[in-house]
Amino acid sequence: MSANGDFSAVATAASHSDPIAPVIFGVTLILVAALIGRHLARRTQQPSVLGELLMGLLLGNVLAWSGYELMLVLREGAAVMDMTKAALSGLDWPAAARLVLGEERAPALLELLKGPQGGEYLLVVHAVDVFSRYGVIFLLFHVGLETCVSDLRNVGADSIRVALIGVLAPFALGLLTSWLFSPNGGYAQHLFLGATLGATSIGITARVLQDLKKGQSGEARIILGAAVIDDILGLIMLAIVTSIIVTGTLQLSEIGRTIALATLFIAAALALGPYVIRFLICMLRHFDEMEAKIFISFVFAMTLAWAASLVGLAAIIGAFAAGVLVMDDQFKPWQCDTCRKYSIKELFAPIEAILVPIFFVLMGIQVKLEAFLDLQVILLALGLIVAAVAGKLVAGLGVRGRGLQRLVVGVGMLPRGEVGLVFASIGRSLGVISTEVFSAVVLMVIVTTFATPPLLRSLFRNGGQLQDSETPVAH
Amino acid sequence: MSANGDFSAVATAASHSDPIAPVIFGVTLILVAALIGRHLARRTQQPSVLGELLMGLLLGNVLAWSGYELMLVLREGAAVMDMTKAALSGLDWPAAARLVLGEERAPALLELLKGPQGGEYLLVVHAVDVFSRYGVIFLLFHVGLETCVSDLRNVGADSIRVALIGVLAPFALGLLTSWLFSPNGGYAQHLFLGATLGATSIGITARVLQDLKKGQSGEARIILGAAVIDDILGLIMLAIVTSIIVTGTLQLSEIGRTIALATLFIAAALALGPYVIRFLICMLRHFDEMEAKIFISFVFAMTLAWAASLVGLAAIIGAFAAGVLVMDDQFKPWQCDTCRKYSIKELFAPIEAILVPIFFVLMGIQVKLEAFLDLQVILLALGLIVAAVAGKLVAGLGVRGRGLQRLVVGVGMLPRGEVGLVFASIGRSLGVISTEVFSAVVLMVIVTTFATPPLLRSLFRNGGQLQDSETPVAH
Repeated sequence: MSANGDFSAVATAASHSDPIAPVIFGVTLILVAALIGRHLARRTQQPSVLGELLMGLLLGNVLAWSGYELMLVLREGAAVMDMTKAALSGLDWPAAARLVLGEERAPALLELLKGPQGGEYLLVVHAVDVFSRYGVIFLLFHVGLETCVSDLRNVGADSIRVALIGVLAPFALGLLTSWLFSPNGGYAQHLFLGATLGATSIGITARVLQDLKKGQSGEARIILGAAVIDDILGLIMLAIVTSIIVTGTLQLSEIGRTIALATLFIAAALALGPYVIRFLICMLRHFDEMEAKIFISFVFAMTLAWAASLVGLAAIIGAFAAGVLVMDDQFKPWQCDTCRKYSIKELFAPIEAILVPIFFVLMGIQVKLEAFLDLQVILLALGLIVAAVAGKLVAGLGVRGRGLQRLVVGVGMLPRGEVGLVFASIGRSLGVISTEVFSAVVLMVIVTTFATPPLLRSLFRNGGQLQDSETPVAH
Repeated sequence: MSANGDFSAVATAASHSDPIAPVIFGVTLILVAALIGRHLARRTQQPSVLGELLMGLLLGNVLAWSGYELMLVLREGAAVMDMTKAALSGLDWPAAARLVLGEERAPALLELLKGPQGGEYLLVVHAVDVFSRYGVIFLLFHVGLETCVSDLRNVGADSIRVALIGVLAPFALGLLTSWLFSPNGGYAQHLFLGATLGATSIGITARVLQDLKKGQSGEARIILGAAVIDDILGLIMLAIVTSIIVTGTLQLSEIGRTIALATLFIAAALALGPYVIRFLICMLRHFDEMEAKIFISFVFAMTLAWAASLVGLAAIIGAFAAGVLVMDDQFKPWQCDTCRKYSIKELFAPIEAILVPIFFVLMGIQVKLEAFLDLQVILLALGLIVAAVAGKLVAGLGVRGRGLQRLVVGVGMLPRGEVGLVFASIGRSLGVISTEVFSAVVLMVIVTTFATPPLLRSLFRNGGQLQDSETPVAH
């Protein structure tokens, strides 16, 4: 056997460099961008999500304009995912690209993917996309963990009215705005934008209220109660809208079927979930606490997420339900006084810390600033911002109190933050929200999230004394 | 605008179902298999890695034989990754498949990928592969965390001799075995199999010794000391072998260049690493402890892993170095007596708990039992097992003690466990280890890992009193 013969095989092996290296580079680049964005947000007392989103927006647009190929491919991430699925069924990338992107935009992306690093780009886009989608699932699992069913019983009538108006009014206004300013989008887009406007991200308001030492005020309690119901109403709205889009019909019987299916899914999860968890705990009693909590929570959340998408609901609905159902109290076999306890939330915090910022930065990267060169997109974005603000301010009218209190509650419900982004990203996955409309939605999310903290602070500063003396009266 | 017009766009959207659902299914299926394997291993007092590996082997072979398409594609995971990179440069899947798999095996895989679910399979394979590779990186980061530079100074001469012989003897025997039983594999394969046999996975021995309450015995100290050096020697060996393969030459100047480059990389990491960590800590001082530790450790580990693969080393070498360099003591700004502290190891435990078992199960899935229908593969596997056992038993001669002690140390070094698997998977990524040889290596890992605990127990049972009275003399 000659040395030459051996090394001809080796020469081809040389091209087989570790495929994880470019993925590590892409994912870490995005996480570093998230860190810088978060760092800057902390220093300027803005919410982290805003810093990460804006950093992604900056990174995506600047690097893409300067011709950085990886970023050009990442910006088309949603299209690349669709292409991958379409390309393989016929094993024909060019046809898939034309199908997904249209004749005009397909050649540029194909050119990049055809290059010597095309395969690496594809792997990076797939990995980043999968990480960010898992991030969203963990995010909603976390929201579910913080939602306690027994809390729902203590929610006041004010909160319920605020939540109901706060979902329905922005839905109607969002639908109208989409229909007026983007008539070509079709019913599917109008419905989805309506649902997106109904979302509320309460984390930002909660932090501002705590900073102002108003976390226990009447307004805070109304807002936090409304936010819990809002999450649930929003997910129901998402379920209905998604099913209308997937079944492709506006027939009431179909919508009814979806609602029935969603109800059945939630009912089955609620009824069987605790038994499944108990069975798993019994099975894994040889494991230590950390292992048992992580594995059971993970498998349960993922199974519900998968089951949800199986019955035509969004995966995040299953993850949310899993979060509601899994509780630290269920892990009794590991309860002891001396050993250190890990809560489920603590155990998932590191995973969330890595994956969730990837989602936010990726959403920022995929905003195309050049879309705003089109007057129609600007009008749509402005319309969405007005609709988003007006819809939630109207929700404040659900409070039986004086004007100021209503305004504080309305402003507190303004930020769409992560929940709005999640809805928009699902809409894009379903193919009903175009790149341009997506960019307009992200702008709306940025503006409502950015505006809330200063608005809340100035409202409390101007009316602080009035409000303080009133709180006991209102409750 | 007619309702029909709107819903034609919607009808195509219907095919755009959430791409994460099949990924969730695939990943969760693998994790459930890991859980069952781990559960069974615990009940039979076997190491977890063995349960996970065997469960993967069972799952992969049974489901693949029963024609389950997803499993058929997952088993060809390594080829699919290579194909992805090759396919895009020319956008031609059939040609890429023939290049990677050869004329004979390509059509079957192409048929699966061409089917209606081909795109989903590709996404699942990519996701599982990326997760398992990240799992390996976190595994080696963990090994690095547990390796303390100051410990190295306290390692005795016995340990150093055991480690040196324990890497070199199996290397020589492994190279010889590969050359004898698989002459067509070429130098690259011979070298890689040698390096793989040199690896030691000490976790299994450490656990058995603890169970036997021999964790503080003279043998235990020699084994644990040798294991630390073994990890480092093994990684150096991997670096040299990898560079020979990647550069495709056996010239001493090239090998010298690699050693110089690896030394430079490690030196640069050791010299600059602490400053980089200090800079990052200073930058992120607005973050809370958990965030700062997770982000800094993650970014540092990933940057070193990426840098390592940039200079031609395996990514895991960078991750290992990062683990050695990051220490909880560096996070002084967050040190306080009252607040609860999270150690870096605790923070990464949940991430490892999910990703590492995916690696083990995937390795099991990719073992092709039908490969053992070939007499040559059986002979190679048997040869590797004999070489692996003989090489490490010889290492026991490095101990200046009586026969029993030497035997205990030799047996304690036997298990290849996760480290052997990592080496084999890198060899396969580099294209130098074929599916058949990979299957033989995994069998060797299973046998050495399986045999060690009962052997150690019976050695201590038969010679326990003799050994107990000798320990003070030996030290």
